[in-house]
Amino acid sequence: MIKIGILGGGQLGRMMFQETIGLDLDIQFLDDNRHFPVGRIAHQFTEGDFTNYDDVMAFAQKVDILSIEIEKVNLDALFELEKQGKKIHPNPRALEIIQDKAIQKQFYKDHHLPTSDFIVLKDKADVLEALDAGSISYPFVQKARKDGYDGKGVAVIRGQMDHDKLLDTPCLVEPCVDIEKELAVIACKNERGDIVSYEVVEMVFDPEANLVKYLFSPAEVKVAYAQKCRSIAEELIQKFDISGLLAVEFFLDTSGNILINEVAPRPHNSGHHTLDAAICSQFENHIRAIANLPLGSTKQYKMGAMVNVLGEDGFQGYTIYIGMEDILKMEDVHIHMYGKAITKPKRKMGHINILGDNRKEIEEKIAIIDQYFKVIA
Amino acid sequence: MIKIGILGGGQLGRMMFQETIGLDLDIQFLDDNRHFPVGRIAHQFTEGDFTNYDDVMAFAQKVDILSIEIEKVNLDALFELEKQGKKIHPNPRALEIIQDKAIQKQFYKDHHLPTSDFIVLKDKADVLEALDAGSISYPFVQKARKDGYDGKGVAVIRGQMDHDKLLDTPCLVEPCVDIEKELAVIACKNERGDIVSYEVVEMVFDPEANLVKYLFSPAEVKVAYAQKCRSIAEELIQKFDISGLLAVEFFLDTSGNILINEVAPRPHNSGHHTLDAAICSQFENHIRAIANLPLGSTKQYKMGAMVNVLGEDGFQGYTIYIGMEDILKMEDVHIHMYGKAITKPKRKMGHINILGDNRKEIEEKIAIIDQYFKVIA
Repeated sequence: MIKIGILGGGQLGRMMFQETIGLDLDIQFLDDNRHFPVGRIAHQFTEGDFTNYDDVMAFAQKVDILSIEIEKVNLDALFELEKQGKKIHPNPRALEIIQDKAIQKQFYKDHHLPTSDFIVLKDKADVLEALDAGSISYPFVQKARKDGYDGKGVAVIRGQMDHDKLLDTPCLVEPCVDIEKELAVIACKNERGDIVSYEVVEMVFDPEANLVKYLFSPAEVKVAYAQKCRSIAEELIQKFDISGLLAVEFFLDTSGNILINEVAPRPHNSGHHTLDAAICSQFENHIRAIANLPLGSTKQYKMGAMVNVLGEDGFQGYTIYIGMEDILKMEDVHIHMYGKAITKPKRKMGHINILGDNRKEIEEKIAIIDQYFKVIA
Repeated sequence: MIKIGILGGGQLGRMMFQETIGLDLDIQFLDDNRHFPVGRIAHQFTEGDFTNYDDVMAFAQKVDILSIEIEKVNLDALFELEKQGKKIHPNPRALEIIQDKAIQKQFYKDHHLPTSDFIVLKDKADVLEALDAGSISYPFVQKARKDGYDGKGVAVIRGQMDHDKLLDTPCLVEPCVDIEKELAVIACKNERGDIVSYEVVEMVFDPEANLVKYLFSPAEVKVAYAQKCRSIAEELIQKFDISGLLAVEFFLDTSGNILINEVAPRPHNSGHHTLDAAICSQFENHIRAIANLPLGSTKQYKMGAMVNVLGEDGFQGYTIYIGMEDILKMEDVHIHMYGKAITKPKRKMGHINILGDNRKEIEEKIAIIDQYFKVIA
């Protein structure tokens, strides 16, 4: 039996594990601690550090195919393993490009794929100098080249009053885009070259709080826009030559341009609804793809929405769920908690999928979830 | 957090585990060997014998709620634990009735629930005596009072030529029923008394081989028959006062009578399609019910069929799947292998669910599965 190893044992690994139990594959995970989301439930779990060369090399000896559920893994080990003939998905070169947002952006430019303009800068002083020199102007977005996630490593600078938000790290600077909608597509490719993509997802914002309220799929956009997003995502996964998943985030601007924002070569928040809304989830398709099996159908039966469940502000400590009964009473609402032993303010603790035949009904259910379901300590 | 313990670590436990990962409950399993279906994947697994009093008592100390995935557990331990105040689902008295088919049949009679006539006999000699005395006559069905499953412990005796099939064990004898269809319903009740039931399922037989080809849901029977089956199942789970699942198998005879055949107080083969065809699967509902949580919707989106995957005749040894690729290529066909390390002829190795909008399309997919997918060694 082919042995698969996953670097990372967080929620994405947990859902890969859950979704492929029926395929009876041999899947193991590497992460720091048995008490992380995968280790708490899965038998085949190795404690170790996926950013450490030796730990990755040792773990890889147990498996035939190595994949990831987080980008921040030890690249040197992956390049060396690839040289030794181990199957690595996504390929280390793609991962290296994606790990550095400046190189990632340059990749889009080189391949004539649409993305906003940008310049690469060294640090905070360099940004201030560029402002003085007029090579960038307000408002702009500064992004750390490495290690950003979930909005961390990104600063929106509207004027001098925002200078204390500037990141003092290698970065790129982009002009602010006049965003009509934020969209995302997950593409999937196996080694033999089959490619599929999921329906386009839209981020729905709370107009008052300016925070993402929920994700909705299929996105309510013109068919031509949806097709363009999917075809870009499918082209990109081919250009990167990735086996596995590639999640692509887009801006649709107010002039109707579709711009690639950034990508992730793994299961992604924007595909969590596929657990319940699609015939084959992103997690199952990731494993099918890296094992070079036929890909599953990405078709959606129903409209699907996804709400992230974040740790409640003001609570830190052992996780307690409040209001789960209210959620379990609702029809076609599916709870996916990640088994994190400790909650912290705004930590991603789980998500809830809501299916339905009309958007109004789905939004009513989301309002109930927002009101009753909390993660406290 | 409430701790749940399950006696048994076979495929039914494996699917309970898989289906409730998102609820982040604390679920542990007891079975002989780590290499059984649950132990191979789940972290929280204890090696021990669920038919052994001491093993069950020790395991129970770790949990608040104790349930089963197999009937054949140590009843003395369950009665003692119940006395000590442990929550036991199903309750030991119901389990005791169900473990013995003679007492089970008497229970239906006592509650005026429809079932075929029967007499209780001691052994093979007693059956032959009853034949001589004319209190039973050909053709009849002899059933062992205890430990029968998957057709084992049942003999159909059409005449003297079948006498070598007679079981020499405490048994009951029923007249053969003129069966129009074999149907099944799974009911679910939680401790607070909410009751739901799934759509009626029908066993579809191969007319030549006279073997079950697949299970189909919702059964193609008159609405009145379906309603009657569901209402009997819901009444039965209440009469047994079971929290959890009760699977009820029925005969619909050629005169339109609905007769209870037998029951199982746990997830059941006739509910395996609910993993993919119902909003909330039987496995998730079993765990919700024993944890006294609100029950999930039993609604089906689409027609669903289920094919058991049995070990191929002539093969015994380490499990090898043949033809999985052909199955993965089909849309809305879902593979559920049980992770059994060793295959044997006719051993239940997994099942495959097939969803669709029309029965013809589903039957075409089943023909492909039958042709290509095999479990060999």
